[in-house]
Amino acid sequence: MTSSSIDTLLDQHEQPHTDDLIEWLRIASISSDPDANEQTHQAGRWVADRLQAAGLKVEWIETDGHPLVYAETPAVPGAPVALVYGHYDVQPVEPLDQWITPPFEPAIRDGNLYARGATDDKGQVLTHVQAVIRLLETGQPLPLQIKFMIEGEEEVGSENLERRLPELAQKLACDVVVISDSSQFAKNQPAITYGLRGIATFELTVTGPRQDLHSGSFGGAVKNPGIALCQLIASIIDADGRIQLPGFYDDVLPLSDEERAQFAALPYSDEAFAESIGVDALAGETGYTSLERKWARPTFEVNGLTCGHQGAGVKTIVPAVASAKLSCRLVPNQDPEKIAQALEQHIAQHCPVGVKASVERDHGAPGMVANFNSPFVAAAKQAIADAFGTEPVMIREGGSIPIVQKFQETLGADCLLLGWGLNDDNAHSPNEKFCLADYHRGIKASAYLWQQIAAMNQDA
Amino acid sequence: MTSSSIDTLLDQHEQPHTDDLIEWLRIASISSDPDANEQTHQAGRWVADRLQAAGLKVEWIETDGHPLVYAETPAVPGAPVALVYGHYDVQPVEPLDQWITPPFEPAIRDGNLYARGATDDKGQVLTHVQAVIRLLETGQPLPLQIKFMIEGEEEVGSENLERRLPELAQKLACDVVVISDSSQFAKNQPAITYGLRGIATFELTVTGPRQDLHSGSFGGAVKNPGIALCQLIASIIDADGRIQLPGFYDDVLPLSDEERAQFAALPYSDEAFAESIGVDALAGETGYTSLERKWARPTFEVNGLTCGHQGAGVKTIVPAVASAKLSCRLVPNQDPEKIAQALEQHIAQHCPVGVKASVERDHGAPGMVANFNSPFVAAAKQAIADAFGTEPVMIREGGSIPIVQKFQETLGADCLLLGWGLNDDNAHSPNEKFCLADYHRGIKASAYLWQQIAAMNQDA
Repeated sequence: MTSSSIDTLLDQHEQPHTDDLIEWLRIASISSDPDANEQTHQAGRWVADRLQAAGLKVEWIETDGHPLVYAETPAVPGAPVALVYGHYDVQPVEPLDQWITPPFEPAIRDGNLYARGATDDKGQVLTHVQAVIRLLETGQPLPLQIKFMIEGEEEVGSENLERRLPELAQKLACDVVVISDSSQFAKNQPAITYGLRGIATFELTVTGPRQDLHSGSFGGAVKNPGIALCQLIASIIDADGRIQLPGFYDDVLPLSDEERAQFAALPYSDEAFAESIGVDALAGETGYTSLERKWARPTFEVNGLTCGHQGAGVKTIVPAVASAKLSCRLVPNQDPEKIAQALEQHIAQHCPVGVKASVERDHGAPGMVANFNSPFVAAAKQAIADAFGTEPVMIREGGSIPIVQKFQETLGADCLLLGWGLNDDNAHSPNEKFCLADYHRGIKASAYLWQQIAAMNQDA
Repeated sequence: MTSSSIDTLLDQHEQPHTDDLIEWLRIASISSDPDANEQTHQAGRWVADRLQAAGLKVEWIETDGHPLVYAETPAVPGAPVALVYGHYDVQPVEPLDQWITPPFEPAIRDGNLYARGATDDKGQVLTHVQAVIRLLETGQPLPLQIKFMIEGEEEVGSENLERRLPELAQKLACDVVVISDSSQFAKNQPAITYGLRGIATFELTVTGPRQDLHSGSFGGAVKNPGIALCQLIASIIDADGRIQLPGFYDDVLPLSDEERAQFAALPYSDEAFAESIGVDALAGETGYTSLERKWARPTFEVNGLTCGHQGAGVKTIVPAVASAKLSCRLVPNQDPEKIAQALEQHIAQHCPVGVKASVERDHGAPGMVANFNSPFVAAAKQAIADAFGTEPVMIREGGSIPIVQKFQETLGADCLLLGWGLNDDNAHSPNEKFCLADYHRGIKASAYLWQQIAAMNQDA
């Protein structure tokens, strides 16, 4: 199909495309919440049904957790195979009272669609689904084979997909993996993401007395688990923002001067960034710029703290227990397993007398850097430039898509990370949104991309 | 009345005394919980009704918070006046799932009555109420005047009673204040408490970005309020357990060698203490014994921590806000106002770049030391020895009864702190209890005390 006939076709379908996304977003598929299991599966079923109705061969693959949705168009001998990866699960929604409209009642304001999962990832993965559905509706065969792997556990570590990947490798065999689960560099500045950070998550629990104690009758003679937790966490970061876990930086590859120069050349303002998130001053590891800190340096974060009395008023206790949800973002070449061991070792060495501390590991995934010079990158650049009217810039991203590194390893395919979202889309926060214009441009870019990849093959 | 006729009278009423306490404990008078206001007032009304039915002149004194219950027996010219102080309010009950039986459904197990408020303070203040009711029922006039001031805000700082004290001073005028809101030294070792710690409570709030942020996209370039909170709290206590707030120890009177020797002479075992609270090792300020740490040294405690994701699973955010409920126990001569200023100054000086920290003051009260050589102490020693069959020891207590110091100042009266509870009664914790044998012994000791005080007057 020509670009202009694709344009016409997609422009005519803007409203149904929006309606579809709204329908999917109404399904509260919070993968980390066992009470939401039924809805999580329902969200997977929703996209499986769409793909099936469009004529794709669909498989519903049960796992020990949430099911995998696999679909494929017919094989095209001699043509490339592209695999689209995305996820139908979403993050939790707390704090609920900060949502202007409820997270699972999608609402359009100022051209943005607000709902949990709008950008992460239902809205973004749906661009590829819609493009393929529309192209197939024309009755013409696609110029390449497109496969979909849409999972329901990306927000909880993709462990089941990762475990099943070796046995699924033949089914998923492809030349390129396409993932839209990241952001443009800025409004009207699309980007191709060539690097992601990894992740390691933990829960640290400090236990003291058998039960909460009266802080008057007992306080002073017994170690307070809340204080011990704070001391342990404080011991992990120094005044320069450097992480003190043993060997934490050993495997970190230094940023090259070239990459630092490239980052520095991007149109970026610390002042605008600080204002956008509502802080007076930025902070982080000494010696690095904000972009370097977000994209290419490892971190240690407190994601949550729980201890003692949290209700109204005063309760003067020495609490029995204190716990923290912790996570590290990792950079390529750091091993989540070694980081977990380093945390466990640090906690064991620094645990104050009078309390016990334990680390429970949650999920981990290494970071990745994609092949900058892949011909697929050139194809994507062209498709995006055509759809968005602006050449994309090459960027890294601070987030983690745990499975990407595994795809690279297991499938030996290049990965294209084509983000249609924006950094202020509030992924993982209240009032998550997706710009509807970007949603529709994303659908176009996806349709163009299949043409570009097929053409690339004919050129070769 | 003779001791033996008092004994007989009280022994006959053990069951109704127990039933009365159970009835009072069923009323969930959590003063810090606005949703419990009606029940809190109901608990005040309950004791006011009892006193009125016994023939006392009762006043229900409204305040800006929970009402005060005042009652008095007729004046006895030439005889001393005693004021009994206690409280009908109770602590919150969380964590609810740790209660073996629900906090407001009193249950008897192994001779102990389990319920929130059993020992703190309904069970203890009721000993004096029951003693006076029984003595009045004999139809004989009391040999002294007894007044009651039973308030509903002790667990939230007694601010309204404190504010009203000057205008109430004439009504409350007395020679001795009797308070049972503390503990015996140990099982079968009754005690008279001559010192209490003061208190100052706070909420520390650290705010960062406008809302929770995706820890991948933003983490590393923005200060994490959860980490900042931990760093601030950790900065307050050093490795020796010394509190680093500016001038914190300036007004602390050193313990005399005599008092330290007295503490050391008490039958006390660190091992037994550690075992009783379920810790492997004790901890606290270097250079002091456990009893010194609990009774006569100031403390800094975390009573609660709240930040970010607290539910099941993982939520990888940089939280927007983190907060801590904090309290200091103070020793006599420390000023809660100066301590609050010291905390505010420390937090302002140590707040990390990129977040804001604020301190909200809650209530404060100084500590106290009572007159060791008062004739009322001698009278109480005799009454307790007669009721418990064991001479009481003289001790201090780590808890705070904020109003005691104010009574000393405003009324110029001696204070007798006669605790019938035990240290393992779980005041402020799940499964609060009161030994019923001690409850009944407390009623006897109270009845004897009025005889002893009246006799003391005749001797003089």
